[in-house]
Amino acid sequence: MQRKAIGVIDSGVGGLTVARELMRQLPNEQLIYLGDTKRCPYGPRTREEVIEFTWQMVNHLLRKDIKLLVVACNTATAFTLEELQEELEIPVIGVIQPGARAAIKVSQNKRIGVIGTEGTISSQAYTKALHGIDKSIVVKGLACPAFVPMVEDGILEGGLAEETVKNSLHPLKANNGIDTLILGCTHYPLIRHLIQKEMGEKIQVICSGEETAREVSLILAYQKLTFNGDDKPQHEFYTTGDLEKFEKVANIWFEEPIEYLKPVIID
Amino acid sequence: MQRKAIGVIDSGVGGLTVARELMRQLPNEQLIYLGDTKRCPYGPRTREEVIEFTWQMVNHLLRKDIKLLVVACNTATAFTLEELQEELEIPVIGVIQPGARAAIKVSQNKRIGVIGTEGTISSQAYTKALHGIDKSIVVKGLACPAFVPMVEDGILEGGLAEETVKNSLHPLKANNGIDTLILGCTHYPLIRHLIQKEMGEKIQVICSGEETAREVSLILAYQKLTFNGDDKPQHEFYTTGDLEKFEKVANIWFEEPIEYLKPVIID
Repeated sequence: MQRKAIGVIDSGVGGLTVARELMRQLPNEQLIYLGDTKRCPYGPRTREEVIEFTWQMVNHLLRKDIKLLVVACNTATAFTLEELQEELEIPVIGVIQPGARAAIKVSQNKRIGVIGTEGTISSQAYTKALHGIDKSIVVKGLACPAFVPMVEDGILEGGLAEETVKNSLHPLKANNGIDTLILGCTHYPLIRHLIQKEMGEKIQVICSGEETAREVSLILAYQKLTFNGDDKPQHEFYTTGDLEKFEKVANIWFEEPIEYLKPVIID
Repeated sequence: MQRKAIGVIDSGVGGLTVARELMRQLPNEQLIYLGDTKRCPYGPRTREEVIEFTWQMVNHLLRKDIKLLVVACNTATAFTLEELQEELEIPVIGVIQPGARAAIKVSQNKRIGVIGTEGTISSQAYTKALHGIDKSIVVKGLACPAFVPMVEDGILEGGLAEETVKNSLHPLKANNGIDTLILGCTHYPLIRHLIQKEMGEKIQVICSGEETAREVSLILAYQKLTFNGDDKPQHEFYTTGDLEKFEKVANIWFEEPIEYLKPVIID
């Protein structure tokens, strides 16, 4: 079939964790990534703002004739997924349901922790997703507002990062009994090593990125949208904010430098 | 929405490993299971026989107005999935693609082993599924024809089982380098502990059952077929063969006895 791209939107660089997994698990597929770095973080914004900004990103990508949209931001997924799925003619995949399904698969004691932005946690989106499948699951949610700004600034190691992770996770660690922790924000896999260390090796950590890529793979196959040609994909990355900052995190996260990165204005 | 069941078909008791995962990951959903124990194993049968027997099972379940069909048998999936997906109006999920996608997710070195029946291995169904997504994956397939009759007879522990597993897996163990092994037959999770022990703890073992249940969960949500009522599901199990043998394996595999098990004649 004709080459069409998968569109990926995020509030900033966090969605790169999803993009990397898409590139790894679906190496033939082409991505167009748009990060609204300028207005990041979305976590503390109002529902109305998140909906408005998300639609601006979606409309920008629709003009590039994408075949599937990944909302690679938990806050945007929490507030806009249902609306996007109803309005768009292409499949729309968020990051909350894949994380929820993966957690249900691995949890043995049905006690699941979720960390995310204030917006994601207060929306109860994970609790709804988990309880929509199994009402007996106990969900422990915790907002970690310090993580996104830290990751956007490229602070992924060292004393400050460790201390921030420790302080933020304290309430969840004290309130124990969970066997699975969902990283309910696509920025968090960038500090997964710190989170895993703080929570202990026994806790199974679920990364939205890996799980979302797998579900994209299924929906592409189910809708017969998988690309089966031979030409190599040429990924495109766009940011509304600072190019250098974006590139810094991207270069840490990907194994090779991004070839095509452009600034973009959306409104 | 109205209560409708998920249909699950298998050549015998192996599909119970998928059924258990469906019951665990989707506790609100109702199952109707049909195992063609009388004509098991399907592995050494011709393509034509497998297609004929599978359609007989499918037609039997369609009369029970199922909302989604799970082909919980790798051999039947290899030979009939595409045809069933084209012909039926309900979603049809096989066990090969979920296993392939899960293996792609976890494998780091892209060297993946697959064990299954002669039919599944010679059909190259896993190789096609894996290469359909990523042509660079190295696939090592091995038929283990001794496993299904052993499991159908309820021999899941002890010296004979261990010896059979050791002898069968020898060619794959000698030809090393894989980091992931797909159990490409739904009977094999019943002897997963023996397979894992023989292959070593470093090999990541993928069970179709867990992965298929997760993909069923996604497709139910995607097609808006998830049951969201409050009444408890009443699962039904049917076998074309010996009730006692079926019950013996089911009781080992499930935590509580099957409530509703009936013999059935299909043709």
